[in-house]
Amino acid sequence: MKKISILGAGLSATSLIEYLLERAEQNDWQINVGDCDIDIAKHKVGNNKRATAFTFNVKNIDDVNKAVAEADVIVSMLPAMFHHIIAKSCIENKTQMLTASYVSKEIKEMGSAAQDANVGIFMELGVDPGIDHMSAMKIIDKLRADGSTLNGFYSSTGGLVAPEYDNNPWNYKFTWNPRNVVLAGQGVSMFIRNGRYKYIPYQRLFHRLSETSIEGFGDFEIYPNRDSLKYRKTYGLEEIPTIFRGTMRRKGFSRAWNVFVQLGATDDSYTIENSDKMTFRQFINTFLAYEEYTPLEEKIRNHFSILITDDVYNKLKWLDIFEDIKIPLKEATPAQILQYILERKLQLEEGDKDMIVMQHRFEFTTKEGEDKEITSTMVVKGETNERTAMAITVGTPLAIAVKMVANKELKLTGVHVPVIPEMYNPILEELEESDIKFTETERTL
Amino acid sequence: MKKISILGAGLSATSLIEYLLERAEQNDWQINVGDCDIDIAKHKVGNNKRATAFTFNVKNIDDVNKAVAEADVIVSMLPAMFHHIIAKSCIENKTQMLTASYVSKEIKEMGSAAQDANVGIFMELGVDPGIDHMSAMKIIDKLRADGSTLNGFYSSTGGLVAPEYDNNPWNYKFTWNPRNVVLAGQGVSMFIRNGRYKYIPYQRLFHRLSETSIEGFGDFEIYPNRDSLKYRKTYGLEEIPTIFRGTMRRKGFSRAWNVFVQLGATDDSYTIENSDKMTFRQFINTFLAYEEYTPLEEKIRNHFSILITDDVYNKLKWLDIFEDIKIPLKEATPAQILQYILERKLQLEEGDKDMIVMQHRFEFTTKEGEDKEITSTMVVKGETNERTAMAITVGTPLAIAVKMVANKELKLTGVHVPVIPEMYNPILEELEESDIKFTETERTL
Repeated sequence: MKKISILGAGLSATSLIEYLLERAEQNDWQINVGDCDIDIAKHKVGNNKRATAFTFNVKNIDDVNKAVAEADVIVSMLPAMFHHIIAKSCIENKTQMLTASYVSKEIKEMGSAAQDANVGIFMELGVDPGIDHMSAMKIIDKLRADGSTLNGFYSSTGGLVAPEYDNNPWNYKFTWNPRNVVLAGQGVSMFIRNGRYKYIPYQRLFHRLSETSIEGFGDFEIYPNRDSLKYRKTYGLEEIPTIFRGTMRRKGFSRAWNVFVQLGATDDSYTIENSDKMTFRQFINTFLAYEEYTPLEEKIRNHFSILITDDVYNKLKWLDIFEDIKIPLKEATPAQILQYILERKLQLEEGDKDMIVMQHRFEFTTKEGEDKEITSTMVVKGETNERTAMAITVGTPLAIAVKMVANKELKLTGVHVPVIPEMYNPILEELEESDIKFTETERTL
Repeated sequence: MKKISILGAGLSATSLIEYLLERAEQNDWQINVGDCDIDIAKHKVGNNKRATAFTFNVKNIDDVNKAVAEADVIVSMLPAMFHHIIAKSCIENKTQMLTASYVSKEIKEMGSAAQDANVGIFMELGVDPGIDHMSAMKIIDKLRADGSTLNGFYSSTGGLVAPEYDNNPWNYKFTWNPRNVVLAGQGVSMFIRNGRYKYIPYQRLFHRLSETSIEGFGDFEIYPNRDSLKYRKTYGLEEIPTIFRGTMRRKGFSRAWNVFVQLGATDDSYTIENSDKMTFRQFINTFLAYEEYTPLEEKIRNHFSILITDDVYNKLKWLDIFEDIKIPLKEATPAQILQYILERKLQLEEGDKDMIVMQHRFEFTTKEGEDKEITSTMVVKGETNERTAMAITVGTPLAIAVKMVANKELKLTGVHVPVIPEMYNPILEELEESDIKFTETERTL
């Protein structure tokens, strides 16, 4: 009997745990779910005879070593900064490990130690990173095998509200950590276009839009998503002239969001004095020049060249930023206050469903010299409040990989991400059975 | 005989050392000048019989303790981050200490230890901080004594090229550390206006201009200078409705500088791949979208709504940013590359003289209920290549304070900045003798 332990039983672990519990009997698995809140872990395992819940605190190293030593396979669903602690213990205890998170510097450095210990550490197995790697690499490898030359690779993902529940002027609701949405894009974004490096500072990011549409789902806009350059190495595309990764939103989102960016309302680096004595209106006003006879609404419109009839004005107004509503946060950063304002209005409501959209575009020249383009698109909608599209697309590929490792179908050692056929082929195949699949179209350029 | 040691003999120490050497004989001082480059120290002391040069390395704690133990008064002209090391040794050795730099958190915390040891640590004794404190506090204290109420305090300073040598389209040359000019204003700037907090993010800073003019010197523009709020405490103005500190430039500077800010060319947080294979033109192009048929000049003009006849276009072009000139810096940050581009053109040339301008504006209501305004303005021009306005205005007030401490005219203990009459009155009085003086005008509002 194989013992599989999941560390962290939050929302993002729902689909993962479900998948493993359903298959525990037939695969002869024992599933142990650990969380610092034992009730959450108990709720997740229910009355499944193959499963137990336990209290787990990553900050207690005895908890870590005990959980790792007792398991054959560890799945870490903890916040990313804790993975390296688990990985260290896994190498010491010769336990296999999987996560959905990015390979950190610390874990990268453990690669050869893991190999020496005969331990596999499999990461980036969620949706982004995860499904993006697998679906892209499958096509990239096929083009290579065909003798085609890849000239450009564009890949974008968005977490959005499903169209049926899309009922606000932003065409957006929080489907994941709102803090990450408020801070998205800070720092610099970089990509390469026709061999020319492009560096986009945060203050220009939401100007630099491209657009796409998905059949049956309408139009989307795309803004650059941080460091696209590093994917050249990950995908073995060191010489590619164009590589771009983006974030997808409904059209019009970025124009309005950019007002907050330009104002400085997304800044998380300092706190505002007496913020708990301010109202939403006063908060927004702190970022604009004092003008005795000009109301805030007019200052915003003048400053950003917005007409009163513009959609962007409607979006801003709908958030109540012009209202004298009290901010209940003491000495808060602008980003924290903005998050509070947004969470009042942009939460998923009971019964709402989310949606993940992902689209790759490959520009290539065939062996015969023809210039062509493949577009590959995935849309996944949430099923229930717990089985959100985000939870499904993060949890399912990870769960499939866990099965492969537990059943010795995947026996690699060292640190791996799913860019190799022996990982992406079986995972993508099984994802299709759960209706997580890509539609491909090809055209001549 | 009093022993005065100066640590650090760079450009900014020139006027200070001159002042002290000239007065060493009559005051019975021994002057010791330490620098990690003994030749610089020797050059500064010349053949003055009262002076010696010595090798001093702040990273060698034995050097520090020896220099401090041997002196009655230490003047630290080292980079600001080293002051706290000197201060600690001064407290241990009961040596008085002076600097022109801001009081750091570490030094602030040494206040009571210094008091207990009977040691005075006098800081912020240069021009900004320094002369700004003294000249402002003199007027603030006078208004208080008159029973007036201060409603607004505005204070701005600029380091510029003297008008006679102002011969480039930017009306600007580097008169101090160019790196600080390139990075100026990053982070957030904050002030308070009519009781309302104002927070200006970097990306809006060079839009938020005000203007002023100085008789005989023409027009200037002013952009907000970092944290004005903290000056409420320093100046005892906790309840003042308006306090603003700014940086002065010649009109038109900020509009053009803002192009670099908006492009992201002042970013110092990441390095550009293969920067040593790029030209100026390619560097600027990395920040703009790829457009096959639009030349860079046109992209810049379109993006920033600049006409070919506009002054801002002329400023940019004059820097050679549209030229294919090689960047000789490997893996450099945008800020480093921009600094290289600017230094080619904006250096002070042989014989050029610099200029410091400082202007305070006080809005107040008199005891009789009259609304009035005092404007207080200082302009200092450089005298020679070594005796720059910056070196004179940093070194002279500091030197006067050193004299006061060495001669026991200033006997305070603990950490002090010159906001008290017993410091600012004698220093301002002697500064006037060196023609470093303020002109006051008053008008009814």
